[in-house]
Amino acid sequence: MAERLNQIANHATASKEAGIPHPLDPLSVFELTTVVSIVRDTFKGHSISFNTVTLHEPDKSAFKFWKETGSKIPDRKAYFIVLDDSLSTGFFEGVVNITTKSIEECNQTSGACPIITTDDLRTIEETIRNDPKVIKQCELSGVPKSEMHKVYCDPWTIGYDERFGTSKRLQQALMYYRSDEDDSQYSHPLDFCPIVDSTKKEVVAIDIPSVRRPVSKHKHANFNLKDVGPLREVKPIAVTQPQGVNFSMDGRYIEWQNFKFHIGFNYREGLVLSDIFYNDKGTPRSIFYRLSLAEMVVPYGEPSFPHQRKHAFDLGEYGAGNMTNPLSLGCDCKGVIHYLDFDFVERDGNVATVKNAVCIHEEDDGVLFKHSDFRDDFQTTIVTRGIRLVISHIFTAANYEYMVYYIFHMDGTIQLEIKLTGILNTYICDEDDDLKGYGTQVYPKVNAHNHQHLFCLRINPEIDGPGNSFAVVDGAQSTAPVGSADNFYGNAFYAARTVPKTTGEAQYGYDGPRCRTYDMFNPNRIHPYSKKPATYKLVSREVPMLLPKPGSLVWKRAGFARNAIHVTPYVDRQFYPAGNHVPQTSGEPSRGLPEWIGDGKAGVENTDIVVWHTFGITHFPAPEDFPIMPAEPINLLLRPRNFFLKNPALDVPASFNVTTSDVKANKAGSHAMKDSTSALAFGKTSGEAAMVGSCCSS
Amino acid sequence: MAERLNQIANHATASKEAGIPHPLDPLSVFELTTVVSIVRDTFKGHSISFNTVTLHEPDKSAFKFWKETGSKIPDRKAYFIVLDDSLSTGFFEGVVNITTKSIEECNQTSGACPIITTDDLRTIEETIRNDPKVIKQCELSGVPKSEMHKVYCDPWTIGYDERFGTSKRLQQALMYYRSDEDDSQYSHPLDFCPIVDSTKKEVVAIDIPSVRRPVSKHKHANFNLKDVGPLREVKPIAVTQPQGVNFSMDGRYIEWQNFKFHIGFNYREGLVLSDIFYNDKGTPRSIFYRLSLAEMVVPYGEPSFPHQRKHAFDLGEYGAGNMTNPLSLGCDCKGVIHYLDFDFVERDGNVATVKNAVCIHEEDDGVLFKHSDFRDDFQTTIVTRGIRLVISHIFTAANYEYMVYYIFHMDGTIQLEIKLTGILNTYICDEDDDLKGYGTQVYPKVNAHNHQHLFCLRINPEIDGPGNSFAVVDGAQSTAPVGSADNFYGNAFYAARTVPKTTGEAQYGYDGPRCRTYDMFNPNRIHPYSKKPATYKLVSREVPMLLPKPGSLVWKRAGFARNAIHVTPYVDRQFYPAGNHVPQTSGEPSRGLPEWIGDGKAGVENTDIVVWHTFGITHFPAPEDFPIMPAEPINLLLRPRNFFLKNPALDVPASFNVTTSDVKANKAGSHAMKDSTSALAFGKTSGEAAMVGSCCSS
Ligand SMILES: [Co+2]
Ligand SMILES: [Co+2]
Repeated sequence: MAERLNQIANHATASKEAGIPHPLDPLSVFELTTVVSIVRDTFKGHSISFNTVTLHEPDKSAFKFWKETGSKIPDRKAYFIVLDDSLSTGFFEGVVNITTKSIEECNQTSGACPIITTDDLRTIEETIRNDPKVIKQCELSGVPKSEMHKVYCDPWTIGYDERFGTSKRLQQALMYYRSDEDDSQYSHPLDFCPIVDSTKKEVVAIDIPSVRRPVSKHKHANFNLKDVGPLREVKPIAVTQPQGVNFSMDGRYIEWQNFKFHIGFNYREGLVLSDIFYNDKGTPRSIFYRLSLAEMVVPYGEPSFPHQRKHAFDLGEYGAGNMTNPLSLGCDCKGVIHYLDFDFVERDGNVATVKNAVCIHEEDDGVLFKHSDFRDDFQTTIVTRGIRLVISHIFTAANYEYMVYYIFHMDGTIQLEIKLTGILNTYICDEDDDLKGYGTQVYPKVNAHNHQHLFCLRINPEIDGPGNSFAVVDGAQSTAPVGSADNFYGNAFYAARTVPKTTGEAQYGYDGPRCRTYDMFNPNRIHPYSKKPATYKLVSREVPMLLPKPGSLVWKRAGFARNAIHVTPYVDRQFYPAGNHVPQTSGEPSRGLPEWIGDGKAGVENTDIVVWHTFGITHFPAPEDFPIMPAEPINLLLRPRNFFLKNPALDVPASFNVTTSDVKANKAGSHAMKDSTSALAFGKTSGEAAMVGSCCSS
Repeated sequence: MAERLNQIANHATASKEAGIPHPLDPLSVFELTTVVSIVRDTFKGHSISFNTVTLHEPDKSAFKFWKETGSKIPDRKAYFIVLDDSLSTGFFEGVVNITTKSIEECNQTSGACPIITTDDLRTIEETIRNDPKVIKQCELSGVPKSEMHKVYCDPWTIGYDERFGTSKRLQQALMYYRSDEDDSQYSHPLDFCPIVDSTKKEVVAIDIPSVRRPVSKHKHANFNLKDVGPLREVKPIAVTQPQGVNFSMDGRYIEWQNFKFHIGFNYREGLVLSDIFYNDKGTPRSIFYRLSLAEMVVPYGEPSFPHQRKHAFDLGEYGAGNMTNPLSLGCDCKGVIHYLDFDFVERDGNVATVKNAVCIHEEDDGVLFKHSDFRDDFQTTIVTRGIRLVISHIFTAANYEYMVYYIFHMDGTIQLEIKLTGILNTYICDEDDDLKGYGTQVYPKVNAHNHQHLFCLRINPEIDGPGNSFAVVDGAQSTAPVGSADNFYGNAFYAARTVPKTTGEAQYGYDGPRCRTYDMFNPNRIHPYSKKPATYKLVSREVPMLLPKPGSLVWKRAGFARNAIHVTPYVDRQFYPAGNHVPQTSGEPSRGLPEWIGDGKAGVENTDIVVWHTFGITHFPAPEDFPIMPAEPINLLLRPRNFFLKNPALDVPASFNVTTSDVKANKAGSHAMKDSTSALAFGKTSGEAAMVGSCCSS
């Protein structure tokens, strides 16, 4: 815990903590402590466990009023969930007004289960190891009782198990064996699955397959330095910024290359970027009010019981913030780094800190734009390099690591890159088993099941102010036949735009061959040249359909994943598209987005809209993913179109510019941004290599 | 010409030039000079112009024989095209045996037109400016005769114009006006289009629209440093490699992190990567015999005459190598760079050099893999960073720049990234014109037409030796209904594989929602764990359909673009999927790929196959693309699947590794690859910021 724990005293005296927070700032250590104290008072005489304490974000109208009038900030509030340790089911949730030091709401909720915290995760293994029924199953698997300390489990949310519903808070224990505590356990799964009551810390059932498979006797598939043998030589690349970084921080507002936005962070979504503006030659223009990963689901494709239960909602069931890693300089993050911490409340009410939860840094972004003229043999040239700003965090969902990068480019583009690494979830098989296409044997006796990683990006656009619409845009052939007057040579094509009027219409899948994109636009702001509305275009190409079938358990629970796109009118507190309390939901009825859409009649045109975009990958495992997976990237772009008068990056200093008249006059051209560190790999041995064609070496 | 010209004498004495070339090496200056001399002798008494002199690659069997037996290299040969200046049509093509100093083949070809060279491009403007009919049209456009030196043209290939066929070598002159020679002309198009005979240097026709539009009086939309006003401040990022690079060169073979391959380059495809092997723990295993961009087409979507003629085949009609830029250190290329030059023959037979045509360098590749254990609050950790190798070149196709990056990753993945920059092709419009959806007014009076950039990647796989097959792979739902025994919860899904037996079957579009991928695999090499064949998987997500309709001119000429995938059996010399001589082809019959596929009966299973993959983007212009476009990336991956026994990068030194037992023993963990250059952006002012959670600073 040392890395995440923090001395409250230290923090409370730090200047930032003592200042006035921004309305969207995560709760400070001081605020969290205040909330814990107020909640404890409220539940005096009860034994309670803290599950969640997080910023209760102000309603948008309150935020806007504050921002536009400069009045005092909206009351700071916390949303909390606590468990009464004497109750086996249900929980209390409410809102604390920190400013007035009072409880504003506190309700007992039953028929639902709150998020699983990392505190919850860490308690299950002890329960398992001491349960006689589990010990017996371990023995049947070939693990003697004396080795129970070598038995581990990844405690997953149970998905939905109809035998229990929400009557108890449950976790399913995916069982593994380590011969040594430093082993990677994933090469040694056990074949049975205990179900544990998280509250009572007791095993309530064990799911045992009809065909038993003893634990593997193969060597563990390890990847620690001490296990992998001789290392290859890799000569390092050094990234430095001798003149410092290009961003500045004002509290949690960052300014970088005309972008300005607030960097929030919470237990559930992890990073939240809000109030995103672009300073367009002195005029601040809004782009997005709020941008975050709001949910995800990882359905596995093995249909046999109880593997259908593997479809974790890693955000709604565990929380990307809860599972966020402390990051380390030079390892997770390379270059010149600014970190933000994340303060949170542990089960016992203590306030802890994830140090370096958020990494902020810049990277070279390659050639931003270039053109040369063929007339003088490409001598007339402008080449301008870009840099990019990266805001990132990494969270661990049991076996998997998700690395989330929000990348800002100089051309106004905002990119979201998610890289998947970590370890495959695995189950035991025999070496000659027919896996029926639902999994891959990635190591002897190790079956990695097919699965999808489906993320839901919540976008609340505010393209050039309020009043936004949405359009789905497809590349479309003219309907005029080849040979007709309107399309004689057959080459006519255009962008077919459909603007949905209601939530019922605003549900779209992906169309790869037509290169479908999605526009968020302000119909009230028309570009003076193109006569088209100010737009940010979502360009997202990794958009698999939900492979669990319509009517399936996952389909019912993950309503957001039924389509690539849903659009709803903005409503305060509609943050989580699979519902507020996701664990053990049956999907009957579907919570979150399907509820909000309802009869589908709400308008989504020229209003405050929220776009829910589901994207991701379908992962058919291969041995290359084992024992630890090389990072696999997923990318999407939000690109300005008809938003700026012209390329907004023309004032970025060119690396090299020589004009036609310069060339004729034999002038050397200009280096507005001189690069003095690039070098030739093999020296200047040829004499001419460094000289000719190398504008910077002269 | 200074940048590209080179002193032959200098080169001929350089050591590499004097050595024995590799069979796939581009022709050296000495070899080119020899070829020119032999061809000149052959055509003694004729006035000839050189069009193409390039390596005539050895047949694959000859290459393999040489490589496997260590015998002397196959005879070095050149393919050439020359024009007889006295003939208005047709050309001579043939093969020179450089080793034996003899002509092996020389044929007169008629009914076809050879590639347009940059020499050809540079001669048209003079013709235009002096043609009385053009001068008259300029006057009608508002450009007086005295300003004809301010009239410019981009000389495009004509596509196919049925009035002329292949009877003359033609270029269409897309007309522009510059008020100053340093203006970007693309904001001032003229409305008419002369057609020029490339051989006779005369205007043979002028296409004039029925509605005339005078040249714009708006200010030119410029982007040179002298035009853009105050520059923003950008603090630089320095990238250095104090211990040197991780690659080594042996001639044009490169070795890097277990990869070894040959870097070729020719007039047409530009970069060609051949004989790609991966050293798998001491065993060299083949992956690809040859990888290159073999063709591309850029169809524009404006149907009105003569805009349908805008559908350049930039490789087959001009040549990516012919148009390649000399690259500059610190501008086009950042970091520690190794360059390769490109030697070529000019029209007059002189040998010239593009200095620094190919850039080779390494980049940081972010986190290669990571895992942390939740049990000790993510203290147990391994995090390993990657580097990547990038082989790149940039070519200018009149207005556009294409930046081509072949990127090699430590996990065995080969990525192709193409970035588009440069300038939109533009046509004049009136400010209130209805562009009918076929274009966008990106600047007053400037219409940028819709278009696609469709590239054809030619892949000759040799996955673990000869005998390869192809499969199209889709994410697929089980056919068993929800609630049935085989799919009770409805979550069953698998990878549906289709293995085409013939070229007729092996034609596939893209399926986005099913996340279609494509496997190149060796059915004779089965993975010991997964029991699946050794595979490289093509993951390509930017795969628009050809928007010009079936039966259209572009559809007929660009047979390769009708599908995302074609597979053919390997045949020597089948390099160019739109045919060997592309300019002015009618598409009747379609050349190249459709010819080779023929009746569709040739087998493509467990044999030597070639995969032709068409991918790209559909570009609906916006003002942000003007006056010069920020680079827009397109990416695809070739990923090893069931090829390696396990993750091949486990021996990359971890940046940080601490095991569970280390954590318990309070040991610091290991930095197998220490990063000593990363730093905090804002110093260590908080005292603790650098200390806690930052493994590298202790
Ligand atoms: Co996965
Ligand atoms: Co384009």
